[in-house]
Amino acid sequence: MILFQCDYNEGCHPRVMEKLLETNPEQTVGYGEDEHCARAAGLIRKACGDDTLAVHFLVGGTQTNTTVIAAALRSHQGVIAAQTGHINVHETGAIEASGHKVLALAHRDGKISASQVAELCEMHLHDASFEHTVQPKMVYISNPTEYGTIYTRKELEALHEVCRSYGLYLFLDGARLGYGLAAADNELDLPFLARCCDVFYIGGTKVGALFGEAVVISNDELKKDFRYHIKQRGGMLAKGRLLGVQFEALFEDGLYLEISRHADRLADQLREAFKQAGFPMLVESRTNQIFPVMPDAVLEELGRDYGFSYQERVDETHSAVRFCTSWATKEENTDRLIADLKRLAQAV
Amino acid sequence: MILFQCDYNEGCHPRVMEKLLETNPEQTVGYGEDEHCARAAGLIRKACGDDTLAVHFLVGGTQTNTTVIAAALRSHQGVIAAQTGHINVHETGAIEASGHKVLALAHRDGKISASQVAELCEMHLHDASFEHTVQPKMVYISNPTEYGTIYTRKELEALHEVCRSYGLYLFLDGARLGYGLAAADNELDLPFLARCCDVFYIGGTKVGALFGEAVVISNDELKKDFRYHIKQRGGMLAKGRLLGVQFEALFEDGLYLEISRHADRLADQLREAFKQAGFPMLVESRTNQIFPVMPDAVLEELGRDYGFSYQERVDETHSAVRFCTSWATKEENTDRLIADLKRLAQAV
Amino acid sequence: MILFQCDYNEGCHPRVMEKLLETNPEQTVGYGEDEHCARAAGLIRKACGDDTLAVHFLVGGTQTNTTVIAAALRSHQGVIAAQTGHINVHETGAIEASGHKVLALAHRDGKISASQVAELCEMHLHDASFEHTVQPKMVYISNPTEYGTIYTRKELEALHEVCRSYGLYLFLDGARLGYGLAAADNELDLPFLARCCDVFYIGGTKVGALFGEAVVISNDELKKDFRYHIKQRGGMLAKGRLLGVQFEALFEDGLYLEISRHADRLADQLREAFKQAGFPMLVESRTNQIFPVMPDAVLEELGRDYGFSYQERVDETHSAVRFCTSWATKEENTDRLIADLKRLAQAV
Amino acid sequence: MILFQCDYNEGCHPRVMEKLLETNPEQTVGYGEDEHCARAAGLIRKACGDDTLAVHFLVGGTQTNTTVIAAALRSHQGVIAAQTGHINVHETGAIEASGHKVLALAHRDGKISASQVAELCEMHLHDASFEHTVQPKMVYISNPTEYGTIYTRKELEALHEVCRSYGLYLFLDGARLGYGLAAADNELDLPFLARCCDVFYIGGTKVGALFGEAVVISNDELKKDFRYHIKQRGGMLAKGRLLGVQFEALFEDGLYLEISRHADRLADQLREAFKQAGFPMLVESRTNQIFPVMPDAVLEELGRDYGFSYQERVDETHSAVRFCTSWATKEENTDRLIADLKRLAQAV
Repeated sequence: MILFQCDYNEGCHPRVMEKLLETNPEQTVGYGEDEHCARAAGLIRKACGDDTLAVHFLVGGTQTNTTVIAAALRSHQGVIAAQTGHINVHETGAIEASGHKVLALAHRDGKISASQVAELCEMHLHDASFEHTVQPKMVYISNPTEYGTIYTRKELEALHEVCRSYGLYLFLDGARLGYGLAAADNELDLPFLARCCDVFYIGGTKVGALFGEAVVISNDELKKDFRYHIKQRGGMLAKGRLLGVQFEALFEDGLYLEISRHADRLADQLREAFKQAGFPMLVESRTNQIFPVMPDAVLEELGRDYGFSYQERVDETHSAVRFCTSWATKEENTDRLIADLKRLAQAV
Repeated sequence: MILFQCDYNEGCHPRVMEKLLETNPEQTVGYGEDEHCARAAGLIRKACGDDTLAVHFLVGGTQTNTTVIAAALRSHQGVIAAQTGHINVHETGAIEASGHKVLALAHRDGKISASQVAELCEMHLHDASFEHTVQPKMVYISNPTEYGTIYTRKELEALHEVCRSYGLYLFLDGARLGYGLAAADNELDLPFLARCCDVFYIGGTKVGALFGEAVVISNDELKKDFRYHIKQRGGMLAKGRLLGVQFEALFEDGLYLEISRHADRLADQLREAFKQAGFPMLVESRTNQIFPVMPDAVLEELGRDYGFSYQERVDETHSAVRFCTSWATKEENTDRLIADLKRLAQAV
Repeated sequence: MILFQCDYNEGCHPRVMEKLLETNPEQTVGYGEDEHCARAAGLIRKACGDDTLAVHFLVGGTQTNTTVIAAALRSHQGVIAAQTGHINVHETGAIEASGHKVLALAHRDGKISASQVAELCEMHLHDASFEHTVQPKMVYISNPTEYGTIYTRKELEALHEVCRSYGLYLFLDGARLGYGLAAADNELDLPFLARCCDVFYIGGTKVGALFGEAVVISNDELKKDFRYHIKQRGGMLAKGRLLGVQFEALFEDGLYLEISRHADRLADQLREAFKQAGFPMLVESRTNQIFPVMPDAVLEELGRDYGFSYQERVDETHSAVRFCTSWATKEENTDRLIADLKRLAQAV
Repeated sequence: MILFQCDYNEGCHPRVMEKLLETNPEQTVGYGEDEHCARAAGLIRKACGDDTLAVHFLVGGTQTNTTVIAAALRSHQGVIAAQTGHINVHETGAIEASGHKVLALAHRDGKISASQVAELCEMHLHDASFEHTVQPKMVYISNPTEYGTIYTRKELEALHEVCRSYGLYLFLDGARLGYGLAAADNELDLPFLARCCDVFYIGGTKVGALFGEAVVISNDELKKDFRYHIKQRGGMLAKGRLLGVQFEALFEDGLYLEISRHADRLADQLREAFKQAGFPMLVESRTNQIFPVMPDAVLEELGRDYGFSYQERVDETHSAVRFCTSWATKEENTDRLIADLKRLAQAV
């Protein structure tokens, strides 16, 4: 059985593991105040081209989203997100449990636009009973999105502008950021993200680390007291240096983008193979998530040898599913799947 | 200027005020443990035909909704409601501030159906990552809804059944309950509500009282410790007897339904007048809220003499607005408006 | 049975009731945006000698405390209060339910001092793991306190200074403010409170109104968006004008202080009578709450004719109890109690 | 510089690291539903002698405490803890941020007693306004406590009994459980804990793992839906198998207790050396935390070569500090410190 259902089926990249092994006996202070965290933060600031950025390391995505949002909002404020946004559907109400409403917008392939944000803000401002509704104060986007799509430079700039106009914070969830930045059609880079977003994070869990997300804060308002929130939301790892060590490995020699490119390249090959075998994509993208629409009978057969995840029913006999590649995907496995797809196509 | 924009423009019904005046010098214990509250609760239990019901008095609607929902749910559970439900749009995120997600469903004239609830529950149960999503545990409906519509006996029974099947609580927001029960096409009554709902409330604020909502709980699980929650959510009035006194007045001689009928009768007259003047209804109903669609120019003229509230834009030159009647509406005022509508129709 | 157990056993002062009656048929807009609220706010601003103050009207004390505190604090911040403070003991954890820790300090007769606040702040600042502890951001005091005591001018100034030094908000709970301002030994007045506190409230529920608390905000940071919080916490009364009307009555002719003086004068008489009868005070004060320490046997006898509330056990045969006077207390009733105390004293 | 300030200065035990390395390339499903977690849970159930226990793996202590408490309590309920309990002082108000009050009791060397719990419950039950106070529903204890002390068999049984009597859950925080179970004067074992507690956890972070806490639930009420809460509170690690793998290593050959004994043995030696050098203990215990009281001048000198943490001021010239040993402490380092203490003693 070969697993393609997500991008966290394996442990970590060997170079990350090596560094964990090598630093294991070291004595350091706890809670992220050690030298590895300091060095990793420095490498990230450098990669972002801005040495005033605050960089913090948290353990996982739900925790990071909750911490950033709860730290930023007052109790009457909410966060705008796509209906399909991770915080709106797949975090067991973590944002609401911290007291805040997710203001969900219709999505286009997982994305939302500046004009949708403007429209919601205008409605709020002109509502005679605006104080009876949640005040929008933050925009949450993910890049890549839950559908594998990415924002263009222009789209992100427009979101930045609309947020500035209406006094909103822009927060980008980069749980899979590497796979976005490494995509064939990507227009973004870290310095651009640091300029456009008030806060974003660079996902490690899905991109080569055992776990860990690096939060990058450019807005001074959000920098203040952030470590209190990390602690309160359970994200302050006692042995914080584990996070620093992993991000050192990922950022000291360009490993983060290098392994992301590997995943995207294999995803492109797989996507092509699905299409050539006659299985169209639910959503087009060039990152590591692939969403073919396939006959249920074919899926059943494929499911004997390959793990993938169910996305949604398309019609009575077809479903969309998700295959993921990652930094850990072996080319021999994608080759085998490609060969099987060809075989299946001929059989159908 | 005659105000029709809501059903809380005036104080309270003279018989309620009289009773407040008469009992004003009495000494009673506080926090709803007095004899007026006991007697009012008894009257409501009797009207509901069930002497095992728990009856509590709270001050206002947002408070009541938050208290009932927060008392019923554990932190990983959410409440299903229509997209247009009051708790989803007009309580400044009070439910989320208490830690719970509102699981919004598409509405039909403000209503949701048993089949929609079943579908959501089935999706939750069959989701491979169901523990990553909020567990549905309560259904919130309002009757009349925010669009003035009411549930039929069959619809409510179906909701009751679906809730029982999936282990959900059924909660009916009766902020305007009187206007529902008194409507020409109403099929419901209090005993039926007490059987179908785990908890519902009888609105006083909008139906003759200065303020106050009577929560009626039939499900034993929800009865337990409910007064702690009233106190915690700020709903335990020090002079709780004020609530008891008002509900005594409303329920000792059938005043509650009597004044509701008055409002619905005038609403029917007004609705008819709007239609005859050529202004169609956004939503059809027989309760005290009226939603005519009118040319913006006509609205501007009408706005000089009458207060009404803006509902939504219909097209470039037309908007839907809301006129409300209430227990306090004077027939001379509706007559005047009807005459003006006739005049406007001729002018157009 | 004559009730002395609290200061909310009766309805409202006749002049308040008269005004409610008189304005009952009026049509006004809802949610506190009517002219009565505007006028009442103006009267309070004038009484405080500062026309830049924001004044809002809420229904009850728990609600007001929760709303003010939740509006002011970010999620990692807590509120300092006396161990005996109302928010720490008698609000069913309402502050914690809004997400904030009450940082309790030892009290002296219900009061806390500037030096205690400074000490806590210093400890926080010098704690190596300060980010692992709640950040103090507000000081909550009540005046009169839960023990009937009041702050001197010097004590309040010192609290104001220490709050300014450490960047804390000073919040004064004035649920019984009138009885403090009217006390024989009082040194404070409204203009002084408005200068010293970032926010305080003038209690109506216990001082002549049916219900209602007037929140007075002097700090601009706390003024921003406050109405959203009122709505979210369930304190925005639909018929908000009821609050305005009552505070108009209380503040247009000095009624608020006049009726407070009445209560304090009778309390002084009662206190004197207790002492002369040989029953010492648990706590000395000159406001409307009286805390005699009495033999349990005497309390049992007294309990047949008078309602009072239990405070605490003093020794095996003595307890401290609480008698309250209020704006509504009849002199014939205090006279009767005084006579009975004399009789009891002779009997003992 | 040799660090003794805490028990999480190093990475993980070599046998844990070895297993992480060995399993690193494996493909498994995520979120703790893999075979390593299943096997580790089985080993723990076996060690506890009860195969009906639910076992879950979370990342860290604050997260575990918040998740367990928030999952167990309804919104009007609070958790009883020692004033010095970790949840009351060192989690940045995480429990309050989840909506619950910590009901703090005076401690004796970090411990609380059954009689204190009974007294608090009796007070609550007999309070005329009990609904105005938080309902106690859980008792939180730590073993070892924050002062390194441990509960006797009799003390824990008494707590179990009192909890059963008053309908409270008993929750034991075992962040340092190994060091308690391995202490010279320990009377407890895992089966006894599983019988006495409704829920407890076995700390990995401080006892040989990189991170991770194993929650053991015996009460069926608390088992229900627990994974939703793990996800909501950010504790569901994507690569959950990392937790399983580490607890396999700790529990398959008795490693957990073996390395705990090592730490306690060195702590006993150090403690003896402090005392012989004339430095008394602030609190007596036999676990891995040592609290000597020392002259400030000596501490300054010692601080040049050794890391330790500040505990509290004892008098003008003396402070109590904390030295910790752990599974990772090298005997050569404790020997060196012992030698230095002898030298310092002679110098003083």
